Amino acid sequence: MDRNNYNDFSQEADIENDGGRRGCGGVGVGVGVVDERNESNVSSYIQREAALTEVLLKSRVNNTSQIAIIGANVCPIESLDYEFVENEIFKQDWRSRRRVHIIQYLFLKWTLALLIGLSTGLVGFLNNLAVENIAGYKLLLIGNLMLNDKHYQAFAAFAGLNMILAICAAALCAFIAPAAAGSGIPEVKAYLNGVDGHSILAPSTLFVKIFGSIFGVSAGFVVGKEGPMVHTGACIANFLGQGGSRKYHLTWKWLRYFKNDRDRRDLITCGAAAGVAAAFRSPVGGVLFALEEAASWWRSALLWRTFFTTAVVAMVVRSLIEICRSGKCGLFGQGGLIMFDVNSADPSYNTPDLLAIMLIGVLGGIFGSLYNYLVDKVLRTYSIINERGPVFKVLLVITVSLLTSCCAFGLPWLIKCTSCPIGMEKECPTIGRFGKYRSFQCQPGYYNDLASIFLNTSDNAIRNLFSSTNEDEFKLSTLFIFFVAIYFLGIVTYGIAVPSGLFIPVILAGASYGRFVGRLLGSTLNLDVGLFALLGAASFLGGTMRMTVSLCIILLELTNDLLMLPLVMLVLLISKTVADSFNKGVYDQIVEMKGLPYMEAHAEPYMRQLVAGDVCSGPLITFSGVEKVSNILHALRMTGHNGFPVIDEPPFSDAPELCGLVLRSHLLVLLKGKKFAKNQVLTGSEFLRMFHAFDFAKPGSGKGLHLEDLDISDDEMEMYVDLHPVTNTSPYTVVETMSLAKASVLFRQLGLRHLCVVPKTPGVRNVVVLSVI
Amino acid sequence: MDRNNYNDFSQEADIENDGGRRGCGGVGVGVGVVDERNESNVSSYIQREAALTEVLLKSRVNNTSQIAIIGANVCPIESLDYEFVENEIFKQDWRSRRRVHIIQYLFLKWTLALLIGLSTGLVGFLNNLAVENIAGYKLLLIGNLMLNDKHYQAFAAFAGLNMILAICAAALCAFIAPAAAGSGIPEVKAYLNGVDGHSILAPSTLFVKIFGSIFGVSAGFVVGKEGPMVHTGACIANFLGQGGSRKYHLTWKWLRYFKNDRDRRDLITCGAAAGVAAAFRSPVGGVLFALEEAASWWRSALLWRTFFTTAVVAMVVRSLIEICRSGKCGLFGQGGLIMFDVNSADPSYNTPDLLAIMLIGVLGGIFGSLYNYLVDKVLRTYSIINERGPVFKVLLVITVSLLTSCCAFGLPWLIKCTSCPIGMEKECPTIGRFGKYRSFQCQPGYYNDLASIFLNTSDNAIRNLFSSTNEDEFKLSTLFIFFVAIYFLGIVTYGIAVPSGLFIPVILAGASYGRFVGRLLGSTLNLDVGLFALLGAASFLGGTMRMTVSLCIILLELTNDLLMLPLVMLVLLISKTVADSFNKGVYDQIVEMKGLPYMEAHAEPYMRQLVAGDVCSGPLITFSGVEKVSNILHALRMTGHNGFPVIDEPPFSDAPELCGLVLRSHLLVLLKGKKFAKNQVLTGSEFLRMFHAFDFAKPGSGKGLHLEDLDISDDEMEMYVDLHPVTNTSPYTVVETMSLAKASVLFRQLGLRHLCVVPKTPGVRNVVVLSVI
Repeated sequence: MDRNNYNDFSQEADIENDGGRRGCGGVGVGVGVVDERNESNVSSYIQREAALTEVLLKSRVNNTSQIAIIGANVCPIESLDYEFVENEIFKQDWRSRRRVHIIQYLFLKWTLALLIGLSTGLVGFLNNLAVENIAGYKLLLIGNLMLNDKHYQAFAAFAGLNMILAICAAALCAFIAPAAAGSGIPEVKAYLNGVDGHSILAPSTLFVKIFGSIFGVSAGFVVGKEGPMVHTGACIANFLGQGGSRKYHLTWKWLRYFKNDRDRRDLITCGAAAGVAAAFRSPVGGVLFALEEAASWWRSALLWRTFFTTAVVAMVVRSLIEICRSGKCGLFGQGGLIMFDVNSADPSYNTPDLLAIMLIGVLGGIFGSLYNYLVDKVLRTYSIINERGPVFKVLLVITVSLLTSCCAFGLPWLIKCTSCPIGMEKECPTIGRFGKYRSFQCQPGYYNDLASIFLNTSDNAIRNLFSSTNEDEFKLSTLFIFFVAIYFLGIVTYGIAVPSGLFIPVILAGASYGRFVGRLLGSTLNLDVGLFALLGAASFLGGTMRMTVSLCIILLELTNDLLMLPLVMLVLLISKTVADSFNKGVYDQIVEMKGLPYMEAHAEPYMRQLVAGDVCSGPLITFSGVEKVSNILHALRMTGHNGFPVIDEPPFSDAPELCGLVLRSHLLVLLKGKKFAKNQVLTGSEFLRMFHAFDFAKPGSGKGLHLEDLDISDDEMEMYVDLHPVTNTSPYTVVETMSLAKASVLFRQLGLRHLCVVPKTPGVRNVVVLSVI
Repeated sequence: MDRNNYNDFSQEADIENDGGRRGCGGVGVGVGVVDERNESNVSSYIQREAALTEVLLKSRVNNTSQIAIIGANVCPIESLDYEFVENEIFKQDWRSRRRVHIIQYLFLKWTLALLIGLSTGLVGFLNNLAVENIAGYKLLLIGNLMLNDKHYQAFAAFAGLNMILAICAAALCAFIAPAAAGSGIPEVKAYLNGVDGHSILAPSTLFVKIFGSIFGVSAGFVVGKEGPMVHTGACIANFLGQGGSRKYHLTWKWLRYFKNDRDRRDLITCGAAAGVAAAFRSPVGGVLFALEEAASWWRSALLWRTFFTTAVVAMVVRSLIEICRSGKCGLFGQGGLIMFDVNSADPSYNTPDLLAIMLIGVLGGIFGSLYNYLVDKVLRTYSIINERGPVFKVLLVITVSLLTSCCAFGLPWLIKCTSCPIGMEKECPTIGRFGKYRSFQCQPGYYNDLASIFLNTSDNAIRNLFSSTNEDEFKLSTLFIFFVAIYFLGIVTYGIAVPSGLFIPVILAGASYGRFVGRLLGSTLNLDVGLFALLGAASFLGGTMRMTVSLCIILLELTNDLLMLPLVMLVLLISKTVADSFNKGVYDQIVEMKGLPYMEAHAEPYMRQLVAGDVCSGPLITFSGVEKVSNILHALRMTGHNGFPVIDEPPFSDAPELCGLVLRSHLLVLLKGKKFAKNQVLTGSEFLRMFHAFDFAKPGSGKGLHLEDLDISDDEMEMYVDLHPVTNTSPYTVVETMSLAKASVLFRQLGLRHLCVVPKTPGVRNVVVLSVI
């Protein structure tokens, strides 16, 4: 409450009569200031509030009234607005819209979907190609040094190369685009919920995400490239939807059709789905991921377009892999994009199998919720370090890189060598040749099973863990050490300033304990250990991410084994249920912790006890239908509100009445146009000739007109401007006695940014605007 | 307009002042009366109107102003209401709800999902078992007679048995539950959109659907058991959700939690998904079907529960099949639930392959849209016959049965015999043994390829068509004749009074032309003809049903071959795009033709030019906060409205103001309770002690209190009743100048049944209720 009131989220007018209930709950949240009042807690649900320079949101984690400001995300956020602004301009445009425009629009829509698919597929493939080659040659070098018994040189080379790659990734992230750090899925999820964080989808973020991810994964961190691919897909969609970068004059006129939040949201949904499709070669999984995890609004037509995009991705990736088959792609053999072979025999299972599977499900739930808890704690600690500046970010990355190198290189020494199984000699490495196993410190003919998964690319490690050709491939101790190491490395790695996906660490840890359980109970079980590894991965994924159908499909598309479906479903059901009883999914947790004001689909129970009027505060700023320029400028300058009710008064109407809602961005365009009149007269028709709907199209985030762009002379200040043509005459309204729960459902279901609260008692003309900034 | 005004869909009051705009578009639609006025056309979109005894809806098919009344469906329909009725009773209940209630509720929710899964799985399995055995023994008898050259006896037995089975199915349908005819998917789709047709989900419908489907499919009709399974699943869900049948005193007290439209809708969504899962052994496909095709409202939590249900179905079906493996299930071998083996080698394709696949996609689109067009025409013709009475229905079924028998038995004579391929002798039938091929009129060692698909169960026929073991298995002429026959038999069969799914006819026809194209271009192609048959089936499914992701998954789960995914996607994309340019999907078409007032997610363009006030008509009936009993009874008797605005007047408020909305069903309970007062006083608190929220729970369709159940004396007529405790004080409202497009989006997105239209000008207290009956 000690901050300027510019971030009051709601406004209220009180022109003829004070209706009694108003003035409650002015909700300004200041840095470090804890507002214990119930109203503020309430309103943090219905509003998404941000000052123009800082995210000042109350953490909703556990009502401990902490202020969560994550270093990398002290950036302006803005809400998206999915409402049709039905003003005169819009209606004129609607009437004049010819068939040819509709065809242009449809053509563009599908072309964009195609382009998103093509680019995401290409980027996904190149990402894999780069990672497989960089990491591959690095590991080959170490392997050769080890075979020649140059152990210290090998470690130096390993740690050194890892650190160089890590520094590259961290530098990109810390200095160019801090928004590219982390998985990116929470940010995309928040965007699709209506929270537009600054530079979340900017071209610079795209650039850093692609290259940072390549360097980060190659640097041997326990991170995946899957989460970043989702973010990359969304960035590509945003980039294409904007028709390129305006900064570099790469825009395309036709794309003005897409200059609104609705179409942008659809494109980005397609992009996120394309990202998953490219990361896992899982087109259907991509669609379902977008549907289940990413998107907050969905419609059937979008299913269809998303499906098209992911189909294109699948085609592109497939053809590129086809080209690589001839061996032109270096170490990227069949490997790159994970596609695992599991035992494809029809699995028949007995009761001990089912019990073991249930155990895995329970373990997955427990490990998963603990993982989420620890990730949250670590992220909060890191955010303190990361806030100090880019250099500290890089230092943190170097520390974690060293720790990872030490673990990966040090732990395999604890393991005794295993002799190469008979008939599988070609899997054992010799100098200059890659096999499935790594010899590490062992003699020829022997291999180190821990090194085979630790000193390998993550895709190969997973493939080894899922493999069912050799049941005794991994010792129990190996699996145990690997699980513990990956579990904790995964936790400490997420949150450093490199693009880092969570899928791969989770799959690795899950597969290792799945295989552990499988081996432990080996004699009583029917199913082979490879399948248990798969089920372990499924259980841990379910326990951390809490997705169901999409995970199921992604795993099936990865393993190409539909007969596993019932078992995977069972495991996911158990692990999700167990984990849900402890905490939230990891992405939801990160969204919350980053202070992104995510709006849940359901109203909180206590909101049923309050009415919309209870969360309103004043003073309300309204405009007349024909308003003085100076008044408008003053209001824009004094408040951060993005919407203002317009009240028609005599002589323009018989009695004062709500005309509609006018948006700040539209006011700015209007003032920039300087179509002013000396007197208070209607100038609507002139105005309509002068402006076109596209002048009012919403530019990308942070690119609109600003107050400083206006240059209004003193004479003009005293003139009038007719607001009717830009006033949305159909704003959604609720009566002040409407329960808060229902009002919040309205906000969320219709994707609103503003909601007018109208009085219940006639004769009193108060209009209140609940809004999300 | 010549009908009583009882089906005016909207009401309007005009107490102090006539606002000018009112009185427009009184929308009564009478039998055979065409209302050419624009308003009525408009309002048919925003309203769903039905008289109490007849569906009197304007067909929206092609604006030719036809009245579509389908014989079997002249039944009352009612809208569902997904709004939380936030009245005093609800709030009291909400406050008193203890943790134990929530746990009870959750427990029940999941138990019900489990039960739905178990029962649907069981029913699906038994259905298959019965069909495979009845049809199997029938075909075995014919086969033996044919091998003994008793051709006439064979035909007589074939046609006779088919007819007996057909009559059984038709009699059940015509006399017991007419709503069980047809696929059932359109009705379930409409239900989930908010249209509750009478007896669509009744226990009698469930009974007839199960047995009618068994008889119908066994009778050799070109119908599937998949559509009916979806309907069966939905009926089972409804039955369980009601806690059994109240008629037979099989109810369970706890289930009162589920006595509202929201929970019922969720259960039925689960049921529909379980139906698909049981029909195709496709759990993920079931979830996606429910999401893409069936449901109009969706939320993440439901995905999770639906997934659980289908997982249970998959488990049940799997275990039952496991039991059958030992051969205890008669002719139900591995056969029953379709699960096809296609060539599982990694398909590599070249340009001619892709061109051929695109051709199949285009053909699928054209054939599909033509199919929909013809089905629509045939259904309209049949409805004239079916309207005449149950006997005519049975006669129509007999005619179609004879036609089918003649085709199935007659057409194979046109085909020359083929010699049994070397090495596949065991597939050729001898007396008493089943093989893949049918000998029909041929000598031992030869087979008739058309008979092999025509005189076979549909699952086996599809398996034959998809088979890739013998490329020359089917001659071009065979495939052509089969395609033409199935295409037209499929069209004339749908719409007769038996439960009839569309999936199987469409898959059969699609597979035959797919294989035809594959064989025709055989020499230039890489892929084998079995895969082309699969792609043909996909294309035709896409062309008729216009689903994408769910079809894709269902086909993949059927064939267990994920590597086909990109090709199936391509084919579906092409065929849907082509077909969409001609007409709507077959289910949407049937919904439309049956006069079920389905509400689309999107507003029609012209609705942007109108405002909510434009589609209002009068007179409005309102109640005071404390109203005279006689007034209420009069209003209930004179109108069919289901919601009435309550206006508080002095002395209960300072000025007249909208208090909320009261529902007809709640008024009936209130009047039944007879808690009246002599004077106009507030009796709310007494009232709350007397009633419990469950007294106001919404019973199943057609089971609520009726006006005739009330017994009010003349004295009581003059007394007053306090409506405040049952008034929903938070109805959604729009201002009268809100654009109609936005108002309709509100209706659909929030699942409303009533929407209050409030005046723009203060001082004028008109409240209009737009409603869907």
